[in-house]
Amino acid sequence: MNAQNPVIAIIGAGAIGGYYGARLIQHGHNVHLLARTDHQTIRTAGMRIQSLDGDFNLAPAQINVYAKASQMPKADLVIVTLKTTANDQLDSLIRPLLKPDTAILTLQNGLGNEQILADLFGAKNILGGMAFVCINRVAPGHIVHSDHGLIRLGEFCGSAASDRAEKIAKIFSASNVPCKVLDNLAYGRWEKIIWNVPFNGLGALLDLTTDQLIGCEPGLAMVRQLMREIIAIAKTTGVQMPDSIVELKIEHTRTMGAYKSSMQIDRQMHRPMEIEAILGQPLRAAQTHHVASPALAALYSLLNLLQAAAVR
Amino acid sequence: MNAQNPVIAIIGAGAIGGYYGARLIQHGHNVHLLARTDHQTIRTAGMRIQSLDGDFNLAPAQINVYAKASQMPKADLVIVTLKTTANDQLDSLIRPLLKPDTAILTLQNGLGNEQILADLFGAKNILGGMAFVCINRVAPGHIVHSDHGLIRLGEFCGSAASDRAEKIAKIFSASNVPCKVLDNLAYGRWEKIIWNVPFNGLGALLDLTTDQLIGCEPGLAMVRQLMREIIAIAKTTGVQMPDSIVELKIEHTRTMGAYKSSMQIDRQMHRPMEIEAILGQPLRAAQTHHVASPALAALYSLLNLLQAAAVR
Repeated sequence: MNAQNPVIAIIGAGAIGGYYGARLIQHGHNVHLLARTDHQTIRTAGMRIQSLDGDFNLAPAQINVYAKASQMPKADLVIVTLKTTANDQLDSLIRPLLKPDTAILTLQNGLGNEQILADLFGAKNILGGMAFVCINRVAPGHIVHSDHGLIRLGEFCGSAASDRAEKIAKIFSASNVPCKVLDNLAYGRWEKIIWNVPFNGLGALLDLTTDQLIGCEPGLAMVRQLMREIIAIAKTTGVQMPDSIVELKIEHTRTMGAYKSSMQIDRQMHRPMEIEAILGQPLRAAQTHHVASPALAALYSLLNLLQAAAVR
Repeated sequence: MNAQNPVIAIIGAGAIGGYYGARLIQHGHNVHLLARTDHQTIRTAGMRIQSLDGDFNLAPAQINVYAKASQMPKADLVIVTLKTTANDQLDSLIRPLLKPDTAILTLQNGLGNEQILADLFGAKNILGGMAFVCINRVAPGHIVHSDHGLIRLGEFCGSAASDRAEKIAKIFSASNVPCKVLDNLAYGRWEKIIWNVPFNGLGALLDLTTDQLIGCEPGLAMVRQLMREIIAIAKTTGVQMPDSIVELKIEHTRTMGAYKSSMQIDRQMHRPMEIEAILGQPLRAAQTHHVASPALAALYSLLNLLQAAAVR
């Protein structure tokens, strides 16, 4: 990450990777997109971005797009936006891109992604971040960004803030993507998981939007129970979230209207759901530390059941 | 219940009440049907029964059908086939029909219906029974009976077998409805609830048929967990089911093919689900006796959430 004009590889050009990648290209960065599904369309038709921060198109000639990681150049910064259900492919997709000082930033959902990358590529090379964004890939190469967009990121090891983290944040900020460096990556992860567990989990299981979940008493009760279980689990890992976060998150969710979580959309599209990263990881932390989490355990089992039965 | 040709009132002429009522009429019994939804159609077009035990039609002149209980004659035997979601109406629907020795037989789903009737009308007047039958009301007055059909019944108080229970069983048996008198009504109820909780509960929550639920490992695991919780709860109420019942019930379910439980159908038709009778009652027994039942508790909460969110 010492280059003046760093080579940036984006692993997984779906909604998140496609949008942020396109923003970086739009602002002159040296970006290389791995788009195993959409590469053909992007190569011939370019990309079309509809965004509340301004629409734009990219012509095919502006985009370096690849079907295989082995065809890509070595990178200074690898941004991982792969769906966590494909995490078993992280090694083969990322290793060809690495130089000794390549920084690897995961913007994936859920918990545990930094640790997986650290085990593969060394903890000191890893950063993590959360994208707070409502975004959909509506067709190959066609992305609609409808709300929010802030990225918060930090180092996996030691203090979350670093020169490297600041440098990456500046790359985003200068590309019309608001970005903040975190003080505490673990806190940020748990603060996102406390929302994702009830709203992705229940939303996918019951095929209900966020406003449906918080629009009835049994829904509010279940959302609150799951959030309280997450607070207790996080506490045993050293992350102290205040009890007041439960009502704050619910109030914030009211502003989102009839929002479909990514996992609800995956369920509707019969795609694999990110059950392990979003629910399995906190559940395993609960089991390791003997924290009672009956609602989380049931939700995890039921989602696995739904996925297994639907896939048959 | 001393009359030679007893007056039989059937409260709720849906699938179950309509089918068994029509069988009793077909065999010359003095039957009076309360059909609040379908009375108009039955009065003008009669009833049409398609049954694996033989199809038949009833002409309007053969059927005593009523829109209101207040219009019905006093009965020697009241058979309750009302959906448990309407249990708050049992008093007003049944009281007008009672003589001092009227017997009241509930064939409703779930637990606790005999106790509700006993509290209203005196425990010594109450019998309970389970209909093991695959049956659907496909249109007003039109019923399809596709599999099984056995009724098992017994007294609520004291020994389940009695002269009265035998007499009622004979009425059914002589009307082409197989019927057995139970030794132990409570055992029979729990033996049905151990099937109903997983297959009605999960089937409705996830909109999955019985073969989908037992056709994948996560489904089998959840079915087994729920059944084990029910065994533990039943035990604290004095009903000892052997652990082997779990695999027996699963094997029996394999013979049923792609069966939709009544609660799954209710979910699909956006009708109230029998959550309280089937899941709420055993859950309250668990709470009273401090039996851990995390899967049952979660399933109960999630079904209430689904129903509340869908009804909005």
